[in-house]
Amino acid sequence: MADKSEKMKARLPRGLVDRGADDIRAVEKMMATIRAVYELYGFEPVDQPLIEYTDALGKFLPDQDRPNEGVFSFQDDDDQWLSLRYDLTAPMARFVAENYERLPKPYRSYRSGWVFRNEKPGPGRFRQFMQFDADTVGTPGVAADAEMAMMMADVMEALGIKRSDYVIRVNNRKVLDGVLEAIGLGGDENVGRRLQVLRAIDKLDKFGPEGVKLLLGEGRWDGGKEGEGDFTKGAGLDEVQAEFVVAVILHSQHVEAGLKNHVGKWNGALEANPTAEAGFAELKEIEALVLAAGYGPDRIRIDPSVVRGLEYYTGPVYEAELLAEIPNEEGKIVRFGSVGGGGRYDGLVSRFRGEPVPATGFSIGVSRLMTALKNLGKLDMSDVVAPVVVLTMDKDTESLGRYQKMVAGLRAAGIRSEMYLGGAGMKAQLKYADRRGSPVAIIQGGDERAKGEVQIKDLIEGARMSAEIADNAEWRAARPAQVTVAESELVAEVRKILAAQAEERARGK
Amino acid sequence: MADKSEKMKARLPRGLVDRGADDIRAVEKMMATIRAVYELYGFEPVDQPLIEYTDALGKFLPDQDRPNEGVFSFQDDDDQWLSLRYDLTAPMARFVAENYERLPKPYRSYRSGWVFRNEKPGPGRFRQFMQFDADTVGTPGVAADAEMAMMMADVMEALGIKRSDYVIRVNNRKVLDGVLEAIGLGGDENVGRRLQVLRAIDKLDKFGPEGVKLLLGEGRWDGGKEGEGDFTKGAGLDEVQAEFVVAVILHSQHVEAGLKNHVGKWNGALEANPTAEAGFAELKEIEALVLAAGYGPDRIRIDPSVVRGLEYYTGPVYEAELLAEIPNEEGKIVRFGSVGGGGRYDGLVSRFRGEPVPATGFSIGVSRLMTALKNLGKLDMSDVVAPVVVLTMDKDTESLGRYQKMVAGLRAAGIRSEMYLGGAGMKAQLKYADRRGSPVAIIQGGDERAKGEVQIKDLIEGARMSAEIADNAEWRAARPAQVTVAESELVAEVRKILAAQAEERARGK
Repeated sequence: MADKSEKMKARLPRGLVDRGADDIRAVEKMMATIRAVYELYGFEPVDQPLIEYTDALGKFLPDQDRPNEGVFSFQDDDDQWLSLRYDLTAPMARFVAENYERLPKPYRSYRSGWVFRNEKPGPGRFRQFMQFDADTVGTPGVAADAEMAMMMADVMEALGIKRSDYVIRVNNRKVLDGVLEAIGLGGDENVGRRLQVLRAIDKLDKFGPEGVKLLLGEGRWDGGKEGEGDFTKGAGLDEVQAEFVVAVILHSQHVEAGLKNHVGKWNGALEANPTAEAGFAELKEIEALVLAAGYGPDRIRIDPSVVRGLEYYTGPVYEAELLAEIPNEEGKIVRFGSVGGGGRYDGLVSRFRGEPVPATGFSIGVSRLMTALKNLGKLDMSDVVAPVVVLTMDKDTESLGRYQKMVAGLRAAGIRSEMYLGGAGMKAQLKYADRRGSPVAIIQGGDERAKGEVQIKDLIEGARMSAEIADNAEWRAARPAQVTVAESELVAEVRKILAAQAEERARGK
Repeated sequence: MADKSEKMKARLPRGLVDRGADDIRAVEKMMATIRAVYELYGFEPVDQPLIEYTDALGKFLPDQDRPNEGVFSFQDDDDQWLSLRYDLTAPMARFVAENYERLPKPYRSYRSGWVFRNEKPGPGRFRQFMQFDADTVGTPGVAADAEMAMMMADVMEALGIKRSDYVIRVNNRKVLDGVLEAIGLGGDENVGRRLQVLRAIDKLDKFGPEGVKLLLGEGRWDGGKEGEGDFTKGAGLDEVQAEFVVAVILHSQHVEAGLKNHVGKWNGALEANPTAEAGFAELKEIEALVLAAGYGPDRIRIDPSVVRGLEYYTGPVYEAELLAEIPNEEGKIVRFGSVGGGGRYDGLVSRFRGEPVPATGFSIGVSRLMTALKNLGKLDMSDVVAPVVVLTMDKDTESLGRYQKMVAGLRAAGIRSEMYLGGAGMKAQLKYADRRGSPVAIIQGGDERAKGEVQIKDLIEGARMSAEIADNAEWRAARPAQVTVAESELVAEVRKILAAQAEERARGK
């Protein structure tokens, strides 16, 4: 045996996590529900590999100013750069562009999978996470955007989230572009500053209006006061410009009943702006379409404070927000906030083609939504039953063969079960069954074998009985925690106990 | 609009593929079946991220002689090397080592996911592919290996593969290690040559005994004759050594009825070898255990020609082989061969710990198995119905709202449907519905709207009628390909047509 100190240390790289059984099962259940909604809307599954040419992913990275900062990249043996995808949209755009002629158009597709960010990890902020997207490529009509908003609302309700506990907020980048044009920030030369303004507004929930004003202006100290924490450089707007932008955003936040009521209050410079005008017209059309389909402002709401952090959006943007106050990933009780969103990205596919290819779509943050659903009690996993454990009292090959045959019989009857495979004695084996959360343990030692019998322990009842004895609780008529039956009765008896336990669980709900 | 030549080319990197709807659905269906078997055996899902520290993945790469050749690697901002996992076993070993104290032991777990190989791609050979693994960590007993073989057999049958169409072959690395010791290739100094011998034997199916002898000796030309194709350097055994190794392997292949019959025929040097003796004893125990559980040699067979290509196996190895002659990934009709396998890897977890941690497990090659199942007709996807398409005859917001309401009504009734979102006219919209494979199209133009009616086209019946007219076939009593009903009857009528189509599909099977 090598010295312990020579052993390699088993450690997970920063910002990555292992997933346990509960989370995997919860995500699978949740994703099956989401998939059913996407399918109901006529979307088809298609997916792309996790690796793309770096240049095909483009420079549309969230929260990054330099191209391709924030992705994991490596060089192929032909010296070309490859990257792990940072979202599902850029690879999908590459796929659609590459297969454009053979695809039906508009092209409606969905996909889920892992995406990667080469960023500093933090609480609730991982370098690998899962997204679940739906996209419609090939139509400029905002009916496609309206449909996305409705589908997000349907996803929320299919997952059991009550109507007052979520809302889909819709805005239009053209409105914000109009605001920026109105204050003199139009034109190619201001791309960088416009992006800074976007990101500043995107922090409204986090830092409030005063914090956003700082980020729009000179900048902001992370600690909230000068000299506290790191300094984030601002977009460099002057005080009047920053006031105006925040006023527009806040105004709309206070109205919330729809677009018509507050449009009139916006100032003249903005009203005369054709980009903003087009944006407002599109929002009106979206509102009309969702209302016609029966989606009122309790589900889908026009809200000009929504911006979304990504640079590539060109028109309507939308966001699913959970209004319920529940613990977030850091354990703090808060209004949970965004669990997904998206928008129109008319430039992403057409980068590859000599023609415009308009597109719109959204992404659900799978882990974040799962955290929310768990905290809302919407991902009940109590119907997963741990395996019955057949204890191995004797370890010779003949005895193991006999236990193996019992397990095979239980499995043939559809009962989840296993033979204990370790080397431990009976006490440790029962402890193992306990750690697994097993409902039943099967025991056959020499005495039972001689009589052709097996002992069956009901571990759920057993645990309760001993808890009650410990608590000195009053006696109650319980089923026996242990029975001895003929070997031929094994399957039938186990089935009976499992049924009784299931009935009890159902009653307890 | 920028010039077309300035556009970036949309292209998938070599060795990677996009997956379409049929494959995604087939894989999901197949994996649900596999998962159900793993669960029935009492395994729990757990998974690891796709990125690990390079040193944690170790030097156990398949078909590679130098450490970490063949993986995609990149440096973190703290200069540590990270790699994409090349299998699911090495990350699982890291996970178990890191969480050893809190896990129940033996630890039974399963996981699926993408793995990556930085290798030269070829037909049916990808740089990203999916595996679906099950592992038991923490027990040296071969009952755990016997269980793996039985579980693989159960997976095959759960997927609908007939008993004569597959077999699980079991061998033991210790037998081969004994053979190598017997011919003087024991000891640390011969690790590299032993690996070359392993890989040579692994090619028996592909190159036959003469090819294997060449690979065991001086080497082999890819074209089969001197000077044809590339030259693969051999393991450098002399002629007698190579003959002996191949004789051992072939012998067992010809016997196949179990171990007892042929053990006696092996030569004295091998019989006196304690490593081989231990290997044979373990194989006998495995055979006894699977027989006791009812798995005869028609399902699980001891076969000393099985070696598996990975270096890290230390004891029993097992392989699921499809015997059916069906097209492989390259379209050739062949005995399909291995769809998964594994073995005991007692060194993998203990690399991280100062104590032995024995383990065994197997991996299913998901894409390869899916290809086989499709070719065996075991992945019928004909129950997936494409969406009903509501045509948009008028494009004004009010009309779109009306169509949107129809779609919302269909979806509320659970009918997969969509509103056509493009800009095209009626003919192109019907063509779109055809490309989607839609069962039904809904049409409401100005005339129908005035009368409060909708037209419903049965596109399946319509396609058949026009095909029959084109074929000049005799007239038959078909249901109408088109009906006009009151708007209020829309959902009921569509449901009726879909039910008639489903009945017809069921009859046609």
